[in-house]
Amino acid sequence: MSRTSLSEFDLIARYLSRPATAGRSDVIVGNGDDCAVLAPSPGQQLAVSVDTSVADVHFPHDAPPAAIGHRALAVALSDLAAMGAKARWCCMALTLPAADPVWLEAFAEGFRGLAERSGCELVGGDVTRGTLTIGVTVHGELPAGLALRRSGAREGDLIAVTGYPGRAAAGLARWQQGERDPGHPLLEAYLRPEPRLSAGEALRGVATSAIDISDGLLADLQHVLSASRVGARLDLESLPLATPLRATLELDEVWERVLNGGDDYELLVTMAAADLAEAQRRLAPLHLPLTPIGRIIAGEGVEGVPLRHLESSGWDHFPEVLS
Amino acid sequence: MSRTSLSEFDLIARYLSRPATAGRSDVIVGNGDDCAVLAPSPGQQLAVSVDTSVADVHFPHDAPPAAIGHRALAVALSDLAAMGAKARWCCMALTLPAADPVWLEAFAEGFRGLAERSGCELVGGDVTRGTLTIGVTVHGELPAGLALRRSGAREGDLIAVTGYPGRAAAGLARWQQGERDPGHPLLEAYLRPEPRLSAGEALRGVATSAIDISDGLLADLQHVLSASRVGARLDLESLPLATPLRATLELDEVWERVLNGGDDYELLVTMAAADLAEAQRRLAPLHLPLTPIGRIIAGEGVEGVPLRHLESSGWDHFPEVLS
Repeated sequence: MSRTSLSEFDLIARYLSRPATAGRSDVIVGNGDDCAVLAPSPGQQLAVSVDTSVADVHFPHDAPPAAIGHRALAVALSDLAAMGAKARWCCMALTLPAADPVWLEAFAEGFRGLAERSGCELVGGDVTRGTLTIGVTVHGELPAGLALRRSGAREGDLIAVTGYPGRAAAGLARWQQGERDPGHPLLEAYLRPEPRLSAGEALRGVATSAIDISDGLLADLQHVLSASRVGARLDLESLPLATPLRATLELDEVWERVLNGGDDYELLVTMAAADLAEAQRRLAPLHLPLTPIGRIIAGEGVEGVPLRHLESSGWDHFPEVLS
Repeated sequence: MSRTSLSEFDLIARYLSRPATAGRSDVIVGNGDDCAVLAPSPGQQLAVSVDTSVADVHFPHDAPPAAIGHRALAVALSDLAAMGAKARWCCMALTLPAADPVWLEAFAEGFRGLAERSGCELVGGDVTRGTLTIGVTVHGELPAGLALRRSGAREGDLIAVTGYPGRAAAGLARWQQGERDPGHPLLEAYLRPEPRLSAGEALRGVATSAIDISDGLLADLQHVLSASRVGARLDLESLPLATPLRATLELDEVWERVLNGGDDYELLVTMAAADLAEAQRRLAPLHLPLTPIGRIIAGEGVEGVPLRHLESSGWDHFPEVLS
């Protein structure tokens, strides 16, 4: 019996796998068997997260395929960053409307580029036909007891944010207005977000809690506040404002983007006030600013933010199941 | 700030999570943070596989939701079985066209029932809106060096199969003809396949290779032959034939179902002939027959099977990319 057809595995292997010579000693069996077999590091715990990116829900279907590949992995890796885990392995469940080798090659280049820079080896996959959907499961490792939980924020802690949130939402708006220059800084923030893996690792042992900003700063802050059973007071004047936002929008509109724009994948962290300088020192080699924007307070909810920003925070996939 | 909406996490938590009191000591952080944090067992290797089930590609969209939930997990667990791994943890990426609580409750019951029986804790998930698609990543553990690879078949080995392949394909045909009795044995074989986890574990150290039959016995045998660089001679007279198939079809049609019907998730294994009795003894407590159906031979391809069965073996999602 001879099979001359290109099976689903051949397809993913051709476009997505790295050469066998690039194999790592922690990958006992890679792509091509029923399972990948991996060797966890002794004494480390395993951090696992899964993220699905659906065309025209999470990204425009006509975005550059390399950006789609990059972004699908980035949003998953961002969860490892928010936990303080070191990226190790990933699996991809790819659903495609058709097999377009040119599209696939560019998609794979975007995915593989970030995977290699992040030390995150693609060890398994599955290809099916359907609406363009990319499911990515990422695996990271971290020392026992050092995970950055959402529940660790304490009254009196500083609240701080990496980088300049709000740029990705502004970039998406530009895309929707027809901007297609991939070098536009706001477009790039949306299409090729950088998961803050090194920052997450660097903040282990300093941050008391962490979350990545995927839905928006206020919405994700609320997850931390709920899990930690505390409240927050923000100081809008201290929000870090990206130059391209300040240059084109009124201040109040900039704040709205910073507070409620999703898709940036910056980290929102809390820490004892005395630890801020140490945290900033650890992020300096990454050229990543860490800006204090408020304080954790007793109680619940957020103070210091006008109601119009609070009302527009967050979003849901299934608003019709509101209770 | 108060969020009264039911977020995607709340949705999956409500329908899919087990109560917190059911937590296990190997799950440090379960659902509800950026990542699950898991404690791998010392000295064990990690087996990981991802499988995507798309409505009307892998299952009829109007199948009973409990069966859809069961089946989506079963096909993923089957890969752990084929590797000889013990199931430990799973993540689900669920894409839904709408949030229907009645459908979700039944779906979750089917998924959860198999997860609990298999010792496979749901530790993470992601819910998005779109075409009904269930992506499941499963994690198992196995002792270093004992993974059942596809590449271990050796000349002279027996080829054996668990259970009665062919029933699921016949069940799908019945479904397409309008049969809806969920108690029909062929329909049940298709809708609620049983991953052979206990059999896979029991065959560690005895089987020289293993694969689960998802695409069909001949197609999956070919994966073993390719990986092991050997050929096979099958004895059709020795194929295990399920009673409901023999009762309704000509022998040659039964063989076609057994050889080329997919979706059964039985295990196809090879072993030294001298080990067959030990392998059957180990499976006896599972009430699972293990039937020798041929031999591994030198060379390549499959002997003993009429061309008409070989020609109809296997299938591809993307035949248009044939080289």
